[in-house]
Amino acid sequence: MSATETIEAEGHLIDSGHLSAIFDKVIEHHGAFEILLFDIGRTNDAVSRIQMRLTTADERTLETLLQELTGFGCHTVAERDALTRPAEKDRCVPDDFYSTTNHRTHVRIGGRWVEVEAQRMDAVIVVSGQSAACRKLRDVKAGEAVVCGHEGIRVTPGFRERDRLGFAFMSNDVSSERRVEASVSRIAGMFRDVKRNGGRIAVVAGPVVVHTGGVEHFSHLIRRGFVDVVLAGNALAVHDIEYALSGTSLGIDLAAGAPVDQGHRNHMAAINTVNRAGGVRQAVEAGVLTSGVMYECIKNGVEYVLAGSIRDDGPLPDTEMDLVRAQDAYARALSKNVQLVLMLSSMLHSIGVGNMLPSWVRVVCVDINPAVVTKLSDRGSMQTVGVVTDVGLFLHHLASQLAEGT
Amino acid sequence: MSATETIEAEGHLIDSGHLSAIFDKVIEHHGAFEILLFDIGRTNDAVSRIQMRLTTADERTLETLLQELTGFGCHTVAERDALTRPAEKDRCVPDDFYSTTNHRTHVRIGGRWVEVEAQRMDAVIVVSGQSAACRKLRDVKAGEAVVCGHEGIRVTPGFRERDRLGFAFMSNDVSSERRVEASVSRIAGMFRDVKRNGGRIAVVAGPVVVHTGGVEHFSHLIRRGFVDVVLAGNALAVHDIEYALSGTSLGIDLAAGAPVDQGHRNHMAAINTVNRAGGVRQAVEAGVLTSGVMYECIKNGVEYVLAGSIRDDGPLPDTEMDLVRAQDAYARALSKNVQLVLMLSSMLHSIGVGNMLPSWVRVVCVDINPAVVTKLSDRGSMQTVGVVTDVGLFLHHLASQLAEGT
Amino acid sequence: MSATETIEAEGHLIDSGHLSAIFDKVIEHHGAFEILLFDIGRTNDAVSRIQMRLTTADERTLETLLQELTGFGCHTVAERDALTRPAEKDRCVPDDFYSTTNHRTHVRIGGRWVEVEAQRMDAVIVVSGQSAACRKLRDVKAGEAVVCGHEGIRVTPGFRERDRLGFAFMSNDVSSERRVEASVSRIAGMFRDVKRNGGRIAVVAGPVVVHTGGVEHFSHLIRRGFVDVVLAGNALAVHDIEYALSGTSLGIDLAAGAPVDQGHRNHMAAINTVNRAGGVRQAVEAGVLTSGVMYECIKNGVEYVLAGSIRDDGPLPDTEMDLVRAQDAYARALSKNVQLVLMLSSMLHSIGVGNMLPSWVRVVCVDINPAVVTKLSDRGSMQTVGVVTDVGLFLHHLASQLAEGT
Amino acid sequence: MSATETIEAEGHLIDSGHLSAIFDKVIEHHGAFEILLFDIGRTNDAVSRIQMRLTTADERTLETLLQELTGFGCHTVAERDALTRPAEKDRCVPDDFYSTTNHRTHVRIGGRWVEVEAQRMDAVIVVSGQSAACRKLRDVKAGEAVVCGHEGIRVTPGFRERDRLGFAFMSNDVSSERRVEASVSRIAGMFRDVKRNGGRIAVVAGPVVVHTGGVEHFSHLIRRGFVDVVLAGNALAVHDIEYALSGTSLGIDLAAGAPVDQGHRNHMAAINTVNRAGGVRQAVEAGVLTSGVMYECIKNGVEYVLAGSIRDDGPLPDTEMDLVRAQDAYARALSKNVQLVLMLSSMLHSIGVGNMLPSWVRVVCVDINPAVVTKLSDRGSMQTVGVVTDVGLFLHHLASQLAEGT
Repeated sequence: MSATETIEAEGHLIDSGHLSAIFDKVIEHHGAFEILLFDIGRTNDAVSRIQMRLTTADERTLETLLQELTGFGCHTVAERDALTRPAEKDRCVPDDFYSTTNHRTHVRIGGRWVEVEAQRMDAVIVVSGQSAACRKLRDVKAGEAVVCGHEGIRVTPGFRERDRLGFAFMSNDVSSERRVEASVSRIAGMFRDVKRNGGRIAVVAGPVVVHTGGVEHFSHLIRRGFVDVVLAGNALAVHDIEYALSGTSLGIDLAAGAPVDQGHRNHMAAINTVNRAGGVRQAVEAGVLTSGVMYECIKNGVEYVLAGSIRDDGPLPDTEMDLVRAQDAYARALSKNVQLVLMLSSMLHSIGVGNMLPSWVRVVCVDINPAVVTKLSDRGSMQTVGVVTDVGLFLHHLASQLAEGT
Repeated sequence: MSATETIEAEGHLIDSGHLSAIFDKVIEHHGAFEILLFDIGRTNDAVSRIQMRLTTADERTLETLLQELTGFGCHTVAERDALTRPAEKDRCVPDDFYSTTNHRTHVRIGGRWVEVEAQRMDAVIVVSGQSAACRKLRDVKAGEAVVCGHEGIRVTPGFRERDRLGFAFMSNDVSSERRVEASVSRIAGMFRDVKRNGGRIAVVAGPVVVHTGGVEHFSHLIRRGFVDVVLAGNALAVHDIEYALSGTSLGIDLAAGAPVDQGHRNHMAAINTVNRAGGVRQAVEAGVLTSGVMYECIKNGVEYVLAGSIRDDGPLPDTEMDLVRAQDAYARALSKNVQLVLMLSSMLHSIGVGNMLPSWVRVVCVDINPAVVTKLSDRGSMQTVGVVTDVGLFLHHLASQLAEGT
Repeated sequence: MSATETIEAEGHLIDSGHLSAIFDKVIEHHGAFEILLFDIGRTNDAVSRIQMRLTTADERTLETLLQELTGFGCHTVAERDALTRPAEKDRCVPDDFYSTTNHRTHVRIGGRWVEVEAQRMDAVIVVSGQSAACRKLRDVKAGEAVVCGHEGIRVTPGFRERDRLGFAFMSNDVSSERRVEASVSRIAGMFRDVKRNGGRIAVVAGPVVVHTGGVEHFSHLIRRGFVDVVLAGNALAVHDIEYALSGTSLGIDLAAGAPVDQGHRNHMAAINTVNRAGGVRQAVEAGVLTSGVMYECIKNGVEYVLAGSIRDDGPLPDTEMDLVRAQDAYARALSKNVQLVLMLSSMLHSIGVGNMLPSWVRVVCVDINPAVVTKLSDRGSMQTVGVVTDVGLFLHHLASQLAEGT
Repeated sequence: MSATETIEAEGHLIDSGHLSAIFDKVIEHHGAFEILLFDIGRTNDAVSRIQMRLTTADERTLETLLQELTGFGCHTVAERDALTRPAEKDRCVPDDFYSTTNHRTHVRIGGRWVEVEAQRMDAVIVVSGQSAACRKLRDVKAGEAVVCGHEGIRVTPGFRERDRLGFAFMSNDVSSERRVEASVSRIAGMFRDVKRNGGRIAVVAGPVVVHTGGVEHFSHLIRRGFVDVVLAGNALAVHDIEYALSGTSLGIDLAAGAPVDQGHRNHMAAINTVNRAGGVRQAVEAGVLTSGVMYECIKNGVEYVLAGSIRDDGPLPDTEMDLVRAQDAYARALSKNVQLVLMLSSMLHSIGVGNMLPSWVRVVCVDINPAVVTKLSDRGSMQTVGVVTDVGLFLHHLASQLAEGT
């Protein structure tokens, strides 16, 4: 009555923790395993390879288990093509659809292994001719060929490399009890490394960047060419412009650190000023807006996308309030060779961006709340460096480090 | 060269802290004041009345100060009509526009004091004939009469009443070191009180309500008639439906407290199932969805609005991804005699809702992170009770208390 | 059947919030009040004066209420001497003992008002001849004259002054969403101000100061003469010495930001090294310890007290493991004209110190956890400035600011 | 010039993550490894065994590496006796002393492997005849034989077992976004399991247990026989007794949830009352103290140790203010077959206790602050279950669960 299958996996199975995770998964499903072959990497750099026979109570559990194990790079020994079934209608796929991870994935079509394009998590894979691509559920059209089950799918999960740029060692834990200056040096190194390689850098930023005094330092990074894309919400832009126009952020004078004057009214006046000009670019061109993050983006040709949210005042004319379009704009900006994403004090936008990224894009997440950093790091501990610190001071030190080097 | 004006204010000036705040404001602007008349309330219930002469360095500072002081109920002794100016174009108002608070406000039109409708903060006031209403900046049309300056405006700020329902004493501080069961009793009392008076109750809820096991208890509140409106995002509905269909939330089995099976895939399957049915209501009607918060909303005729965000998977067909429309739908739902709002573990939606509420709607904010409760409470300490606790257990105890009483 | 009494109070009653607090107290006890006289300060600087008649249900409630109101500066109109009763035995006082606040207090002895010495909270007042002093309960001896009840006691509560050093405006709230560089400037100003006035500065510090890279900057402050007393626990000294000897803190290399080598063993080796020398001073004199906070303390004649705790490794020979002696040593160090206390990342020691301080010593509390800052600030919002930030970076910026000025 | 050594290890090397950790350590030291033999456990239950040759740049690095690897169960293939050297003087050991982990350890003496007694971390091992024991540095006497280097030492690290009591799955991460009721069920199961096996249970508790309303529920656990030892500080006892005598905790009425009456004075009155009686036991015997945690401890013969701290008021006569004696009393209480420790809202005492425990004692840590739970769990993720929730409500649910079962 029980079901059985032989699978194999190869790679840095031990260092990555995948081998242990594979065993765990089998136990979770009350299955059993027998190791048929285990070839451990003899040296630091060599990969390991395992072949094991799985046994579960019934066929259905086995199917489930096998689909889950694809996430750790497992595949059946006997190679078959990926199974596809047509989507029954728009936005609706067969029940046994394969749900993607953010790791590099190949599917077998007509006997050939094809890399899946636009890799991201929580998507389905649509096959068209000899190519395959991740597709958000909402973008699936009736009749499209959707990959189902677990066969003919190979996932190549990343693993925490031990020695490149010290990335791995930094990301071991999330704690506020760390010397941030050491982290800043390494992150500055990553910034330089990515730019040297022709990659692009995206910054996801919340309004706390402005409140904590990060505007000058962020502006500096933009002027030095270390920022290619800014992904944010309406509030970052509003408070940045409020600060440029009146020296306050949410009514707090950032030089004096005290609430002033027309306090809470200033951000509404900022929106009104931009509305009058017709948009942020027009306000810059008219000479009304002469400093700040948004100003620098426009002056330096940095792409920005402002996504709306339920809490927005205004919004600014530049803010995209249709969130389907906003998500697409974010994803498009990230797809243009972005190799590093710096996430600053915005859990909302950072999770949004995290959902869109393949696992090989590096992520640095900075927040003063350790729970936020933990949450973001959990989405892929191998790609994320978390730093628990004051965001304004972090930007100050990062900008200083990057000024020295160039 | 200096400017001077005589103002007056009346009400619970001392208990509310307004008198002290008025003095602070004058000092902030480097002004001086002289008390002309101070009639202190002789007994617990009597109100106080003050008349004072303000002096500032120049006319412009005086104008600014006077506008700010309207927020504490101050008005000039000499009564004049409110000044209006036409909006120069859509979404754009004169620079000296009056920016609203969330307190009850009257403006003087043609010699008569008129209450401003649709009170909310960060809006402007548009006058039309003998009526006046708050208007979001984005909804202002060219040529409309916008209230400017500070004259002819009277704000009646609330104050922390000392003895009604124990509301005041609870809200004194935000701390995790409190006995929650005492707070729950009082909040249950508020719930009953509002329903007895024919008021409506709105619940703002994040997906943590599902993750922490609150679904059964929330469902119970709905069935008992204690919830009239649910304001949430896509994620609450997705995880609620995931839990109804598969017993998990974000892949964690809520009975066992452990990750299971198809883990992260379950929420995508939930979305797919609703997409197949055509929407949440259709899924309920088709007998596919048979329990949970969304199910109960539909079965019990509870209004719900799901607002989209940049981090949404799916979204469900019911989720409003156009945030201008979503904000309007939230505001509309709140405007129908909602007298109490319970905010559960969603900073984003809670801030959104807080922005829309007049100061006389009571708010109870529950979150396990004290910083979130502090932030939400700061928006109007007189109307908000903050409780720092586990949201799932809070709902359990609230539902138990409200079950007993009815 | 009811009881009544006439009291008066004077000072900045409104600005300080005391008048409102007095009213609240009366209501809490279900009492009533009638204002007999209220003389409001006519100008910014003038004080107010109030006389009011209180009525409560019975004599006992009135006694309780009157004792509580002493904390806000209230006293009965009819002046009587303070009532004393003998302590029945060591460490044990009459049930109606007067429990002190941290505000300046006078008691009336033989018709004369005498200032109470060694002011601190949660103590009793012992009268001896014509003098009076705060005494910890454990230090009370049988037969000593202990002040009881509420008569003949006058408390002069501080109030948040509006314009001195910007202290007041800074302390309005506790949030991580602030520009720390503005706070640092003001705090640097306080440091200079205190030193210019001949006052002493105490620093309370936890081991996080070392972990976050603050040692060099703290050392700098000591060398520049800005630190007179260091109050800490065993852990600060152990990790400081670990860092001096091996470059790590809890096994993390602070330059590289990564765990190294003999990791967790290093702090034990540090203790062993100090044990071998015989103490910290001997290790410095022997040339074994050549840098760090402890080294600088010894080289610059800065007093330090290390208090033991249940979590201590070692301890170092310098650590006082008898906590009665440790508390006394802390209190003694603070009593020598300390005018400013900087509390860095140690809730335990900070609360301990906070308990010992009179309300006129200014306190700056820095921690990355807002709940800690809130908790410490709650003990006396008028004397405490809270800064939520990264402690290592805070020290870096504070040291830079203070280097410039001198 | 390079140094080399062959080591072996066996056990659940992969599941435990030890194999990966061994590789990491080698890389950290810039060493190389070659796998000579790897025998993977063929089935769920079988252990693995590895033999590998290590090469490092020099002999000293090799020594360091080998000592570190003992923590993961590695030992050299060639067996030698443990090296001991005499302590040069009291509290002072040779520089290459072996610093213990909290895992079960054996040392080879005269050719025989002997289990080390009183296992705990951060100690040294003292050999006396044919026996060996952990010794705190401060207790080492001149001339005692202290184990040095890495030879003749075998550590048997625990590993996260997959299926016993669901312990492992619970402890995967620390998050406030969990259903606590599922965790409570499992923890109740552990409590019953330990009592069934004749083990003892210790509870470490901070005053927040009282503030959050946990006293009745904690009392219930004691009366039901689920608590054998209470390890706490002065504050727990003071506030517990304050609550028993006056219904408040830090002046907050726990039934009403509001500050009352003589507020802050109540805890001083509680201390005074106990001082008058002569101690907690005497207060119980005199009928003065008739409820609460301390009362139940005395009535039910539960051992308690109250350790002093720098922040203590009083202290109570029962509080041990000599911290060397307090640590020894804690350690003694824990050494009597304590198999489970429940840590409730006291980072200080919990870290203290964590330092004393061998790795095979299970620990459940409950706090509303995720950073505290993370910090405590980090000390040994395999033995600790972390629950982020409201402590008062947690105790309520735990007591309910344990009431049902018995």
